[in-house]
Amino acid sequence: MQLGIIGLGRMGGNIARRLMRGGHDVVAHDRDQSIASALIEDGAAPADSLATLVDQLETPRVVWVMLPAGDPTEETVNALAERMDAGDIIIDGGNTFYKDDIRRAKALALTGIHYVDVGTSGGVWGLERGYCMMVGAEQEIFAHLDPLFDTLAPGHGNLERTHGRNAPHDSAERGYIHAGPVGAGHYVKMVHNGIEYGLMQAYAEGFELMQSKSSPDLPEDERFDLNLADVAEVWRRGSVVSSWLLDLTAQALTGDPKLDHYSGAVADSGEGRWTIDAAVEQGVSTPVLANALFARFNSRKDSTYANRLLSAMRFGFGGHVEPPK
Amino acid sequence: MQLGIIGLGRMGGNIARRLMRGGHDVVAHDRDQSIASALIEDGAAPADSLATLVDQLETPRVVWVMLPAGDPTEETVNALAERMDAGDIIIDGGNTFYKDDIRRAKALALTGIHYVDVGTSGGVWGLERGYCMMVGAEQEIFAHLDPLFDTLAPGHGNLERTHGRNAPHDSAERGYIHAGPVGAGHYVKMVHNGIEYGLMQAYAEGFELMQSKSSPDLPEDERFDLNLADVAEVWRRGSVVSSWLLDLTAQALTGDPKLDHYSGAVADSGEGRWTIDAAVEQGVSTPVLANALFARFNSRKDSTYANRLLSAMRFGFGGHVEPPK
Amino acid sequence: MQLGIIGLGRMGGNIARRLMRGGHDVVAHDRDQSIASALIEDGAAPADSLATLVDQLETPRVVWVMLPAGDPTEETVNALAERMDAGDIIIDGGNTFYKDDIRRAKALALTGIHYVDVGTSGGVWGLERGYCMMVGAEQEIFAHLDPLFDTLAPGHGNLERTHGRNAPHDSAERGYIHAGPVGAGHYVKMVHNGIEYGLMQAYAEGFELMQSKSSPDLPEDERFDLNLADVAEVWRRGSVVSSWLLDLTAQALTGDPKLDHYSGAVADSGEGRWTIDAAVEQGVSTPVLANALFARFNSRKDSTYANRLLSAMRFGFGGHVEPPK
Amino acid sequence: MQLGIIGLGRMGGNIARRLMRGGHDVVAHDRDQSIASALIEDGAAPADSLATLVDQLETPRVVWVMLPAGDPTEETVNALAERMDAGDIIIDGGNTFYKDDIRRAKALALTGIHYVDVGTSGGVWGLERGYCMMVGAEQEIFAHLDPLFDTLAPGHGNLERTHGRNAPHDSAERGYIHAGPVGAGHYVKMVHNGIEYGLMQAYAEGFELMQSKSSPDLPEDERFDLNLADVAEVWRRGSVVSSWLLDLTAQALTGDPKLDHYSGAVADSGEGRWTIDAAVEQGVSTPVLANALFARFNSRKDSTYANRLLSAMRFGFGGHVEPPK
Repeated sequence: MQLGIIGLGRMGGNIARRLMRGGHDVVAHDRDQSIASALIEDGAAPADSLATLVDQLETPRVVWVMLPAGDPTEETVNALAERMDAGDIIIDGGNTFYKDDIRRAKALALTGIHYVDVGTSGGVWGLERGYCMMVGAEQEIFAHLDPLFDTLAPGHGNLERTHGRNAPHDSAERGYIHAGPVGAGHYVKMVHNGIEYGLMQAYAEGFELMQSKSSPDLPEDERFDLNLADVAEVWRRGSVVSSWLLDLTAQALTGDPKLDHYSGAVADSGEGRWTIDAAVEQGVSTPVLANALFARFNSRKDSTYANRLLSAMRFGFGGHVEPPK
Repeated sequence: MQLGIIGLGRMGGNIARRLMRGGHDVVAHDRDQSIASALIEDGAAPADSLATLVDQLETPRVVWVMLPAGDPTEETVNALAERMDAGDIIIDGGNTFYKDDIRRAKALALTGIHYVDVGTSGGVWGLERGYCMMVGAEQEIFAHLDPLFDTLAPGHGNLERTHGRNAPHDSAERGYIHAGPVGAGHYVKMVHNGIEYGLMQAYAEGFELMQSKSSPDLPEDERFDLNLADVAEVWRRGSVVSSWLLDLTAQALTGDPKLDHYSGAVADSGEGRWTIDAAVEQGVSTPVLANALFARFNSRKDSTYANRLLSAMRFGFGGHVEPPK
Repeated sequence: MQLGIIGLGRMGGNIARRLMRGGHDVVAHDRDQSIASALIEDGAAPADSLATLVDQLETPRVVWVMLPAGDPTEETVNALAERMDAGDIIIDGGNTFYKDDIRRAKALALTGIHYVDVGTSGGVWGLERGYCMMVGAEQEIFAHLDPLFDTLAPGHGNLERTHGRNAPHDSAERGYIHAGPVGAGHYVKMVHNGIEYGLMQAYAEGFELMQSKSSPDLPEDERFDLNLADVAEVWRRGSVVSSWLLDLTAQALTGDPKLDHYSGAVADSGEGRWTIDAAVEQGVSTPVLANALFARFNSRKDSTYANRLLSAMRFGFGGHVEPPK
Repeated sequence: MQLGIIGLGRMGGNIARRLMRGGHDVVAHDRDQSIASALIEDGAAPADSLATLVDQLETPRVVWVMLPAGDPTEETVNALAERMDAGDIIIDGGNTFYKDDIRRAKALALTGIHYVDVGTSGGVWGLERGYCMMVGAEQEIFAHLDPLFDTLAPGHGNLERTHGRNAPHDSAERGYIHAGPVGAGHYVKMVHNGIEYGLMQAYAEGFELMQSKSSPDLPEDERFDLNLADVAEVWRRGSVVSSWLLDLTAQALTGDPKLDHYSGAVADSGEGRWTIDAAVEQGVSTPVLANALFARFNSRKDSTYANRLLSAMRFGFGGHVEPPK
């Protein structure tokens, strides 16, 4: 089917390419003309503005917005809404906060425009492997867009089938789901990323334990100089902790076992934070997800006020003078 | 090659079977004769005592001990040592604390007997999938036992090869490693299990967040009745959180989406605890691994003294009377 | 000075009483006439509606609102605003979220009405001990209300003076501060309560460790049957952990050393949750404050989905069947 | 009464002084002669070796060992034991691991020498304020030493009495307790320090939240430039979080509100670590105590392997390049 795509960066560009490879017609727009050009060479129809993009689409129009969450997406959705008609569909494929989706869908419903939120996992690997998608939408709208999702998704692959699943047409087994009404897609994606933080931190803590086991502070016969690339590699086969993140760890450690390419400052993004806000709102204990986020906060600071206050108290009650860092 | 196996339970029995399928000769012993019988039917030579087991083995003898950690393993290793000779090899394939390995190896070294620790992951799936093994041993002893490990391990499988690994004979790619000297095998396995706790808890917290999103306490348009079996299934394909534990989650939720078969009391084992002890000893921050362990401690208690004290303090300063649980 | 007080419950009633004892004139209103009557007997002028309360006050009017945060406070502030004039002052002494304060003050500023937020600690002990207050307000408004705060505050007491503080008129030393502009009072009070959760949880964990040290699971000579009331009492004198919360703990344990009066279900309130939201918003690592909140969430649940999922995974990979709780 | 004291550093020296002020006779020894000299000027009898110290004591001899835990204490206890007789008493007033106490007491019991462990809190303030003591000892030995503890303890002070405590001779109310058999004193002191870590971290996190509330990243009207010295001071009066640690915080912030004197690297000691080991051994969930310890571990590191691995994984799945720290 035909659709417009706005935002042709790393994610949007590859989504457009995978859709075109699957036979769909893409009208493409990006504020940065040089980025747009690359996609046009790959077969997309050019649109140098939102208005010309909307004009080129047949009704009911479908526009996939793939921009940074927050203002860029908000402004684009609003600008599109002014140019689109009842029955048209706006898809937000970015990392929007799910309550913003709900608010937008309500506002657009007054004009008859449909809003769809798609949580997308797969990163830079999506073009080749396919994208895992969680969709929040009205039922009929999800059904209407099914050909797009089917093209973008990884498909069955060579995974062993989960025992007990036997529906003939099971989109979950092909890599996408209709999670629920608007907002549900990004909510599930948000939790996905919260889990991702927890998984990553679990591996990170474990590998640091093993890395530090060679410390000269330990008794000599309890000191191990472990080959962590080998450890990651062996765990890929038959162990309980095998995962895609472990595959990536094995890859990273093969080239750079001491990880000297990295400073240790780790960014975090909206979803990791919103997950904790959701836990607080819902009264759910999430110590692992929260501590994984906190570890990232700490990773970016050299000296915290909190730690300096600890030292000040220690000096106060015990006359302890801390050694320099 | 020929070896003796002591302890023919779920793990030991299947290890014996996989070795026999691979052409090795197994002399088998278990205190429980009925358990031993099953294995003898599968082709193992019977040994009704440690003494007869040792007697049946050619030198240098190899005995694989697969018993619960602690006293059962300790006593058996000691009893074997009395009956074995310099050059013989005792393998502890159980979940022994690595400092016990180091102590035992030192004691046995005085008699010339070699000690090997094998951390084994794979659980009930190992017979078919193969076992992932981390071995602590002297270099020559590891080399001598290589045929056993090679048979037990999963082999290359159909995994994509880690970019940059190109050694022709890479045991890590077949599912086993020589982690280091005695103790290193169980140390790596211990950390493996610590990571496992963290990974499991990350998924558990995330799925509880999604499960509780249908709560009537939430605003109606922010309430989602998510199909968690579908969520787990879709994440298996192309998402960053795909893993074997997620495969198992998808399996469990397909049959029992509300998980009513489980009480919520979760056991923990030595490795999870020792990992935190190691973190404390090594001065490594492991909030995720520790909180995952603590979640299990809490899961088994209805009412803690800690929580009752919180209520007592709240009553003290604010006159707050807690609602009943 | 004269002021109106709305909301005469445990907190509001005692604040009114302490103000009257200090010579201030109170016009009192509560929706519940029987609660109001008690205060009128203590000397307050009655007001059976917001309108009559406002009518009885001299300009510039001062009204202290002491109601549950959220709708009750919001509606009352709005109703007062309709009846009050430029130059009048509304004080919110409840537990309002500080961003609501900022929003309200902005709206009221259009009409010339001043808004003040007062975070108040002291609970049921405030009538006798005085209230510790953190005030968010314009500078002149804070100065105007100083006589009220001075009366409500505990005063210098017999505390040792902090070395280096030597201002002649130091409200902090008497128990109240001008924390900053509107919102700052409730923000500081919010963090105060977040810290309170952390302190309480620290004691709770420690006392549970000591309580469980008598467990028959421990080796006999490492088993201690500690008198925890004595421990709390002795720590009150000269130890680093002495505090008012410890005083309350000593009190609670003296009457009920096993804490059998409490179920173990612990409530939490807005401030504890908002503190974590603030930490997430500000990118500050607060593992202690967050885990203290999570412990309360858990305390109110018998069986969580998260824990049941752990069991399901354990069954999946290891065939482990959990013992019943 | 008469006693020997070995180790005249900050703690031991002041303990000796407070005992002498209370009328006890002290025979003093320190390996460092210059340290010993200061105490001899204050009235202690000199002993230039363990042997001469033991020789000067009347039987049953009492020797208080106040040395760093571990080897220094162990060696001194052993050396004393060789020179002392049945009925004599060795007191370990340091920060010994309680299982070491139990082991030593058992060994000494064979010779009839009694062993006592005293957990002592009070730090540099103890000389003036008195020491809070938790004692592990046989009942008669504790009774015999009561005059020493009574002198060292703070006494009743001007604290309000805990309601319900009315024993005429209550050592807990004077600042020392017989916690239980040998080991119990140091066990209770260990938990005391674990709690101390948790309390300190709770304050530290809260003050960092307030400190960072002036960040230019926040919306202008939600930005507060709080006077944290004032906040700490006001909380000392009537608030739920008042404590001695808060007094020290108020003190520290008065002189150095930005805490620029401190690097942020915070040491930890045995008790904080052993508390977590005890929690793991006893199956008690202690997220606050554990995370407080982990925060200190982290405070001393600039870049962790764990964090670098997080970056490596993020690069792997998303092509994310972390900004430099």
